Amino acid sequence: MTTIEEDLEDAASATPERGVVHRGVRRARAWLSRAVEPGTVDFWRYVEDVGPVEAARRLRAGSAPDRIRALVGARAQEDVTLADLGRAERCGGRLVVPEDDEWPALPLHALTLAVAREPDDHRRQSDRTLAPVPPLGLWVRGHGRLDELADRSVAIVGARAATAYGEHVAAELGHQLGERGWTVVSGGAFGIDGAAHRGALAAEAPTIAVLSCGIDRPYPAAHGALFHRIADNGLLVSEWPPGCAPLRHRFLVRNRLIAGLTRGTVVVEAAARSGAQATARRAQAVGRRVLVVPGPVTSAMSVGCHELLRDEDLQAELVTSAAHVIAAVGTIGDDLDGPVERPSSPRDGLSDLAARVLDACPVRVGVSPERLAAVAGCDILEVLRVLPALELAELVQWTGAGWRLTPPPTPTRDGPAGPGAAA
Amino acid sequence: MTTIEEDLEDAASATPERGVVHRGVRRARAWLSRAVEPGTVDFWRYVEDVGPVEAARRLRAGSAPDRIRALVGARAQEDVTLADLGRAERCGGRLVVPEDDEWPALPLHALTLAVAREPDDHRRQSDRTLAPVPPLGLWVRGHGRLDELADRSVAIVGARAATAYGEHVAAELGHQLGERGWTVVSGGAFGIDGAAHRGALAAEAPTIAVLSCGIDRPYPAAHGALFHRIADNGLLVSEWPPGCAPLRHRFLVRNRLIAGLTRGTVVVEAAARSGAQATARRAQAVGRRVLVVPGPVTSAMSVGCHELLRDEDLQAELVTSAAHVIAAVGTIGDDLDGPVERPSSPRDGLSDLAARVLDACPVRVGVSPERLAAVAGCDILEVLRVLPALELAELVQWTGAGWRLTPPPTPTRDGPAGPGAAA
Repeated sequence: MTTIEEDLEDAASATPERGVVHRGVRRARAWLSRAVEPGTVDFWRYVEDVGPVEAARRLRAGSAPDRIRALVGARAQEDVTLADLGRAERCGGRLVVPEDDEWPALPLHALTLAVAREPDDHRRQSDRTLAPVPPLGLWVRGHGRLDELADRSVAIVGARAATAYGEHVAAELGHQLGERGWTVVSGGAFGIDGAAHRGALAAEAPTIAVLSCGIDRPYPAAHGALFHRIADNGLLVSEWPPGCAPLRHRFLVRNRLIAGLTRGTVVVEAAARSGAQATARRAQAVGRRVLVVPGPVTSAMSVGCHELLRDEDLQAELVTSAAHVIAAVGTIGDDLDGPVERPSSPRDGLSDLAARVLDACPVRVGVSPERLAAVAGCDILEVLRVLPALELAELVQWTGAGWRLTPPPTPTRDGPAGPGAAA
Repeated sequence: MTTIEEDLEDAASATPERGVVHRGVRRARAWLSRAVEPGTVDFWRYVEDVGPVEAARRLRAGSAPDRIRALVGARAQEDVTLADLGRAERCGGRLVVPEDDEWPALPLHALTLAVAREPDDHRRQSDRTLAPVPPLGLWVRGHGRLDELADRSVAIVGARAATAYGEHVAAELGHQLGERGWTVVSGGAFGIDGAAHRGALAAEAPTIAVLSCGIDRPYPAAHGALFHRIADNGLLVSEWPPGCAPLRHRFLVRNRLIAGLTRGTVVVEAAARSGAQATARRAQAVGRRVLVVPGPVTSAMSVGCHELLRDEDLQAELVTSAAHVIAAVGTIGDDLDGPVERPSSPRDGLSDLAARVLDACPVRVGVSPERLAAVAGCDILEVLRVLPALELAELVQWTGAGWRLTPPPTPTRDGPAGPGAAA
């Protein structure tokens, strides 16, 4: 048993090894994930700035800036990282960190871009329940790989006090999206959330429940069997270390992750001025599509949905089927056919915006999305919205340092029959 | 009993008397309304061109152009006008003609503008079931004044095979719109139409049924009692003379009148590829707002509504209440409050478009809407959409020859107490 200081020291002096995350880095992030509540802009920026190992060392040693030390307070002297990591392991979980290959970097880039817009003055920053801050690490439980499951994922959210109609529609959408290879992401709650997860599971498709409590004690307890099935087929995900309770404000902090991890958010039922409406607005704020299922105008549980659809600023889209959802968030080539005939080149199917972003991409050296936005003459969130589609259509690629056009394929002489065909 | 030739002759030589329509003019239009099916572009243009009396005379005398004579055929020698006018009178009806003060000229101007866009070549003109042609006259039955009832009116249309949900919503909308002084216009059919009429009647508000058959034999017969109540409180309206049967194509021809007479069309329930959808598209084609009530995505009777809402070209607006409908079609000042505080001048509340059209209006000599569109740099249909609101806000006025700014009010010395107050 090494102390946290020994592990951090070791990580600080170790030579980085490709594809391997040092145990000190993971332990640093485990410690940081308990030191301050997720969603704190200044804390995330400090960790980004000095790195997780150095951030933890300085906070433990009392040499971090006053404002950051004030955020941590007395917890600077505590260390339950080995206990947390052990509890996670015992329930079949682990801590995924940004240094892991499994980290869903592409989806979460939306939050990185959004947090860059937060002002430096902490008094003018968004409240923690609303700030678009990336997570410092994600505790996950289950068999799936987080980045793979998040790649083609859609959030289905809605009222806990759902009607039979809402639960039916959520389950149908979950099932149909699952059948077509999409991961349904939701919050594991009663009502719409549970129905969406169950629909996906019925299609034997993986689904992700993003929790606002520890992965070892998922809430609500009455969904225990459901959470077990989700872990077997997909993932339980949380920013909070094992054992943490689902405090009220944590649901709001959690919602940005549901939006950030997915390509779009489908609201199935929502009362007026409800949490589901807030989730939809979070999704729009980080540049995601907001898709809304209508319902009877006589149903209180659809009032919030109709409000969203009438809100011109939100540009929410009315959807009634999984086909509509996929048409809205799908990728050119993978999911979307042309209306009459398929485009002869992937470029033909692009929106004006996507074509402009593509034109802004350099051939060799990758550039930042900020740079693309400047060249394409559009908003950074718009760039962010079209980049995943361009990448999946193999028109652009991420070099590790920035975005560039995908180089043309190298010609190959391999015939259609490989060695296996001769056997 | 005068012959039609005598009446026409008399009308042709009579000095026009202000506020009085010559019996020969009304008889000419009665004859024309039976001579050719409504909705025929070339026939309407000919009547506009030479006037109703001259058109009837020339057709009777065989001196009209070949193409117009071909449209009338052998019916040129028939004359049942006195019988038609008598049948109308016996059922409490009359023929309202464009020469009457009661003619709803302002609403129907939408059709006049739209028909101007039809090409001269009749082979390239819209099919009669789709051509946006004004009526040559309107047979009406009931106690209301057509122009007054049509002034603040909204169409409520939808499926005949409506669900209980749809009928409930249509009746509620009809009731609430009626309570607020709006005339509900519909087609008198089973399902949504009937529910909307009944809702208005329950609020003791006038309602208009636009029929595709004679006003003396309204269809469907099972709605006989309903039609009686409508005639008592509002109007039955038809382009077809008494006795005409509700032929299938006549429903389609009729639909343009429902759109033309009203400020907007609310679709309550519609199946996929249904007649109600077609009515909505007709409304948009003549520059009217299309308002759509959503429903359960599991209901076949709402599929058409959701299709309309997903059609970006249509720019349909989702509505769930009479308040939403009035906000969409109401008039600044009369119906619409500013979002927070009332505008200090009627101008303040105007949309960009309305302000541009207002700025295009001259002070003295009235100009055509076409001219306004050219000066304001917008589409003629857009001009048409904002003119009624500008007029009802008393910002512009119709001079008889064109539109101009409303002159400032002449100062008056009358105190608040009139002569009656002294009695």
